[in-house]
Amino acid sequence: MKVKRSERLIDMTRYLLENPHALVSLTFFADRYDSAKSSISEDLTIIKKTFKDRGTGILETIAGAAGGVRYIPSITEEETEEFITQMCERLSEVDRLLPGGYVYLSDMLGEPAVLKTIGKIIATQYLNQRVDAVMTVATKGVPIAQAVSTYLDVPFVMVRRDSKITEGSTVSINYVSGSSNRVEKMELSKRSLKRGSRVLVVDDFMKGGGTVNGMKSLIEEFEAELVGITVFAESTFQGNRMVDDYTSLLCVDEVDVRNKSIHVKPGNYFEKSVKKTD
Amino acid sequence: MKVKRSERLIDMTRYLLENPHALVSLTFFADRYDSAKSSISEDLTIIKKTFKDRGTGILETIAGAAGGVRYIPSITEEETEEFITQMCERLSEVDRLLPGGYVYLSDMLGEPAVLKTIGKIIATQYLNQRVDAVMTVATKGVPIAQAVSTYLDVPFVMVRRDSKITEGSTVSINYVSGSSNRVEKMELSKRSLKRGSRVLVVDDFMKGGGTVNGMKSLIEEFEAELVGITVFAESTFQGNRMVDDYTSLLCVDEVDVRNKSIHVKPGNYFEKSVKKTD
Repeated sequence: MKVKRSERLIDMTRYLLENPHALVSLTFFADRYDSAKSSISEDLTIIKKTFKDRGTGILETIAGAAGGVRYIPSITEEETEEFITQMCERLSEVDRLLPGGYVYLSDMLGEPAVLKTIGKIIATQYLNQRVDAVMTVATKGVPIAQAVSTYLDVPFVMVRRDSKITEGSTVSINYVSGSSNRVEKMELSKRSLKRGSRVLVVDDFMKGGGTVNGMKSLIEEFEAELVGITVFAESTFQGNRMVDDYTSLLCVDEVDVRNKSIHVKPGNYFEKSVKKTD
Repeated sequence: MKVKRSERLIDMTRYLLENPHALVSLTFFADRYDSAKSSISEDLTIIKKTFKDRGTGILETIAGAAGGVRYIPSITEEETEEFITQMCERLSEVDRLLPGGYVYLSDMLGEPAVLKTIGKIIATQYLNQRVDAVMTVATKGVPIAQAVSTYLDVPFVMVRRDSKITEGSTVSINYVSGSSNRVEKMELSKRSLKRGSRVLVVDDFMKGGGTVNGMKSLIEEFEAELVGITVFAESTFQGNRMVDDYTSLLCVDEVDVRNKSIHVKPGNYFEKSVKKTD
């Protein structure tokens, strides 16, 4: 039975949102709704315009026999700015201050709405680059990696500091922790990354950059390629940071344990992010 | 400027899908699209019907001045069955077999599509119960907890076996690992769970049930309440399992390391799941 335009628009929107980056042919929709391709094409024009106007993302049209549409989620600069401002405020709350000058983040990185927005922001940053996998180090980077991987529709891989029997054979490297200057070890399951993969590295927090640098070495060890590095928050670091080329959404620039104050400002995201085109 | 119905339907669908479980007032939509409440109400009737027909979930209408609509994501039994069958096949692949009879799962639990479906299935199971938080133990349970928490729109908390300085003060308990009979320790950041919270426990794999049992003790320690336990996969366990009341999506019932074979069957999900009503 032919499906009405209103129902088609609702279900197509749902389908596209749930399958980001997937190429969907017009035939698929035409069959699904028992409708003419010309009607589907009209529907898609309306969806494309609405997605653009409302900042939902880009609906890319690929012409030709192998063509179709592809939904690429993105977030507007205004929303990104608003989110970062809000996060600066929340991170500056005094009771987040932990002994040693650390900042408590775990609650925020367990909130679905926060994670979704972080995922969208980072995915938007790499919109125009091929990414095959998102990499992070266990444990706190995992929710961020998962959120980004959802919007890019690529798998994420978890590097671990402690190998588990359930990972099978692993490749391990030693790295120098940037802040404590100790040699540590990290490893990744051998089967989790293919040679030649283009890898995006994400993490929750960066101090000296040692962990991120370790992941860079692991990527080389797997003969894969680094696309970029984005962290949720960095802290200003006295000394030589081991990584130069990275993006941070937030920057914790003053922690005063004695007077119990934290100051958090936006990271280098807006300087770094390449303007996206439609 | 008044927004056309077609655009409204697209954007409302998007808004509802991105904000599961949130109560959205008709006024919010009426203002957003500069349209009459009566038109919005008609739109919602169409969306409700389409969501129902296509198995997208339930659009709940709450009448009265404080009312509005709430989108509750769910998955159909057919889709659940199809997914579980497919997972049984994938998990039975011989090269997943690891020394010691363990099964390699990490690749699957890094795929966005797999995680989304697991999240929807578990969220659907607890559709009619109040859940305030999803709990899991680091590391491999985290992606599952995050997926479930997204569809339930509640935060998730990570229990850890190794305390980190970035967690602040923690509450720790000792528990007996069901399969190895060793005493181990797990801890949870003190501020991550409120007293009286209703907690859903999820994990990737259950053998003897010791870890899950440990989480039960932690929940008691926090004076919180256990809503239920769902694991992605269980393995048949020779001996006394430490937990009786749990749900599993999959059951690894035969691992033969010598002849290199694994057999995986559906877990007890279909026996356990309470029929949901609209």
